[in-house]
Amino acid sequence: MGVPTRLLVVGADGAGMSAAHQALRTARRLGRELEVVAVDAGRHTSYSACGIPYWMAGDVASGDDLVARTADEHRAAGVDLRLETEAVEIDRDGQRVRVRSASGESWLGYDELVLATGAEPVLPDWARTPGVLPVHTLDDGAAWRRVLDERSPRRALVVGAGYVGVEGAESLRRRGLDVTLVTRGHEPMSTTMSADMAAMVREALQRMGVRVVTGTTVESLETAADGRVGAACLGDHEEPVDVVVVAIGVRPRVQAAVDAGIPLGDHGGLVTDDHQRLADGVWAAGDCCEVYDRVLQEHWYTPLGTHANKAGRVAGTNVGGGDAAFAGSVGTAITRAHDAEVARTGMLPSWARERGLDVESVTLQSTTASGYMPEADPMTVQVLGERGTGRLLGAQVVGGRGAGKRIDVVAMALWGGMTAADVAAADLAYAPPFSPTLDPVAVACRKARRAPVGPPRAPGQ
Amino acid sequence: MGVPTRLLVVGADGAGMSAAHQALRTARRLGRELEVVAVDAGRHTSYSACGIPYWMAGDVASGDDLVARTADEHRAAGVDLRLETEAVEIDRDGQRVRVRSASGESWLGYDELVLATGAEPVLPDWARTPGVLPVHTLDDGAAWRRVLDERSPRRALVVGAGYVGVEGAESLRRRGLDVTLVTRGHEPMSTTMSADMAAMVREALQRMGVRVVTGTTVESLETAADGRVGAACLGDHEEPVDVVVVAIGVRPRVQAAVDAGIPLGDHGGLVTDDHQRLADGVWAAGDCCEVYDRVLQEHWYTPLGTHANKAGRVAGTNVGGGDAAFAGSVGTAITRAHDAEVARTGMLPSWARERGLDVESVTLQSTTASGYMPEADPMTVQVLGERGTGRLLGAQVVGGRGAGKRIDVVAMALWGGMTAADVAAADLAYAPPFSPTLDPVAVACRKARRAPVGPPRAPGQ
Repeated sequence: MGVPTRLLVVGADGAGMSAAHQALRTARRLGRELEVVAVDAGRHTSYSACGIPYWMAGDVASGDDLVARTADEHRAAGVDLRLETEAVEIDRDGQRVRVRSASGESWLGYDELVLATGAEPVLPDWARTPGVLPVHTLDDGAAWRRVLDERSPRRALVVGAGYVGVEGAESLRRRGLDVTLVTRGHEPMSTTMSADMAAMVREALQRMGVRVVTGTTVESLETAADGRVGAACLGDHEEPVDVVVVAIGVRPRVQAAVDAGIPLGDHGGLVTDDHQRLADGVWAAGDCCEVYDRVLQEHWYTPLGTHANKAGRVAGTNVGGGDAAFAGSVGTAITRAHDAEVARTGMLPSWARERGLDVESVTLQSTTASGYMPEADPMTVQVLGERGTGRLLGAQVVGGRGAGKRIDVVAMALWGGMTAADVAAADLAYAPPFSPTLDPVAVACRKARRAPVGPPRAPGQ
Repeated sequence: MGVPTRLLVVGADGAGMSAAHQALRTARRLGRELEVVAVDAGRHTSYSACGIPYWMAGDVASGDDLVARTADEHRAAGVDLRLETEAVEIDRDGQRVRVRSASGESWLGYDELVLATGAEPVLPDWARTPGVLPVHTLDDGAAWRRVLDERSPRRALVVGAGYVGVEGAESLRRRGLDVTLVTRGHEPMSTTMSADMAAMVREALQRMGVRVVTGTTVESLETAADGRVGAACLGDHEEPVDVVVVAIGVRPRVQAAVDAGIPLGDHGGLVTDDHQRLADGVWAAGDCCEVYDRVLQEHWYTPLGTHANKAGRVAGTNVGGGDAAFAGSVGTAITRAHDAEVARTGMLPSWARERGLDVESVTLQSTTASGYMPEADPMTVQVLGERGTGRLLGAQVVGGRGAGKRIDVVAMALWGGMTAADVAAADLAYAPPFSPTLDPVAVACRKARRAPVGPPRAPGQ
């Protein structure tokens, strides 16, 4: 037996710990000796950040419920896990990382390095005001629960209307707060949904009583006598608020990598090859990375737990001596806004047109179940196809219960490079509680399939 | 303008009327003259037979709600529709069909003939007893509603535990009847689900109070003093019953075609080419036909509204002068049994083994949403892959709300000839209310992907 290979994992959330365990499993299977050290600046491991809005809402009783695997479980499985230990410098020539913890600084050597440093919320200056919190880490969630449970705030402002903003607004409204959601876009979720579909998200939020203010940014916040946030300046209007969710986006946490000379991609993230390799012996996975989008055929920044998990496993397999590749994404995402399930995959019509594609967008109004069933809720499906080839480029769904996960049909079609005609003909499950005779996604694809080659429509038409 | 082509459609339900309208649309688009006559022995057109159990249950108020398009609507759209007109003889040489109605018999000539005669329930001798009814036509549904609303029966026997039997049992139980479901199989749905998955269907029915009797057939029925059914002999046991659902299967209604010399397939249905053509100028679509199964690579009898609609459209397009092909099925089906959504696609493990395939079946226990969410219901996914190649061969799902339509992910994979590894890697929608971080279908496929080549397991293992 030789000296074991030492893997150092920086970041102990989904991607990092997937990599750690998969490396151990693979090495064990191949009879290799591997020693795994993982460091994380925070106090928690392997938790569902996506679950935090539901913890805020009261669906989830405790932050512990969001932890998929505790530090002790990781250690019992053979990972030397060191929490509250920040990686501050990567010395690639020396194959070591300088870490800082309460007990001081030290260098940790490695043979293989996995960077899984995740993302950090974008925080404007006004976000430093007490009463303003992001929805990003388990500590953020705990802080939110303390504020909500102990201070009983009445008025909330949610700044930013992407997934986190929409979910945060829903959660706070369900807790009974007066909620204003402000976005600089024309609609909520306008960067990932078409305007007409995004309008339905706004309407759903409005149905539950959320006030939606579009085309507006927060100029500044005013503090109350107790030093906590008391009002927000929205354009020329001042609105009293007790708490503020800052959810204007996240960016990859890559400072240590940048300082070590690792280049960034166009979207500010690390760009690995399909084996999650950055360089010899240096790997990366998770929200610090860009992800290859198979539809756009370029790297894109889509921080999401599914990609992080899968990419982490791929990195771990390769570190452990196996051979795995991450096949990328097609841009699938889903959320819930009150009574609306909201999902998307692939390109927006505007993205396709920017890329010079001749496309046809078909929007279909239908129902989640056969129209005569009590389960039937309205559902709108929008499908984007390329004229002439019939190639499927994307889809969006907004509708009642059972609508959202239908996006997976198009996600599978995009994954397999299928045409709209393929989906139109596919054998999708039908019974009255679940679908009209022909699934609305298939019907929308049938209509998109027919699009003849022609001049592109002007944007907005 | 020449003499218009005359299309005669025999059978005015989903397949026939899809063919009729699609033929008219296609002919109009191509500038052809087409005259369409449609005959049907019954009194109704274009209704959802699948909806009848839900009409019985009270979910649907009126049989009219199940009618997608009325006779008048068909006529307004240009179809010469003749109801209560039975096709009794096809004279292929003379290109004419003898029809019988209240006003007598006559011959209707055609240039193109579409046979869309549907299926008929298998009715044993004891099914002639008053109080015994199938669940097949709108008239059956009306008869059921009369019995249930006016006679208030207390005890129901459901004979046969396929989709119709399970749905009938659920409906009658929801109406408050004592329900016994009897099947000669080892479990309900045992012809289309694996034994372990079918056991979950039985348990769901039992949870709602349905008594499930397996491995048993109805020997005979006893009548009560009023001449209606009063008891059923199940093996050596006699059980008092007030009403009986006969749901032991359907068979293609093909007598007129057989008499005209048209051959049948191995499953007793008409076998067309992929254009839905039986012979020059003779076409067929819907439940009188077998359907090409892309996974089995053979024709199979899968009577279902989705196939009927699609095949009817294909026949109509071709009759109208266009060119369309029906791409077949992959054996997808779904139903609900109380609190369980039940879905399947592709092969059963036993079917694969009968065909000499070396397969691995993976069963995964998971949840419909992230485990910490209140929406999370148990869900079991079974995936069948071919060892060595990793080719996906089928899947089954039983679980709570949101489980069933997940089968469409595997249906799409089967449709596109993907492997289990493809599904494992695919970008499926994730957010806590909708899925664990990795979709259970993808996780099951990841486990199936790993199956090494090896000796086939013995059946039942």
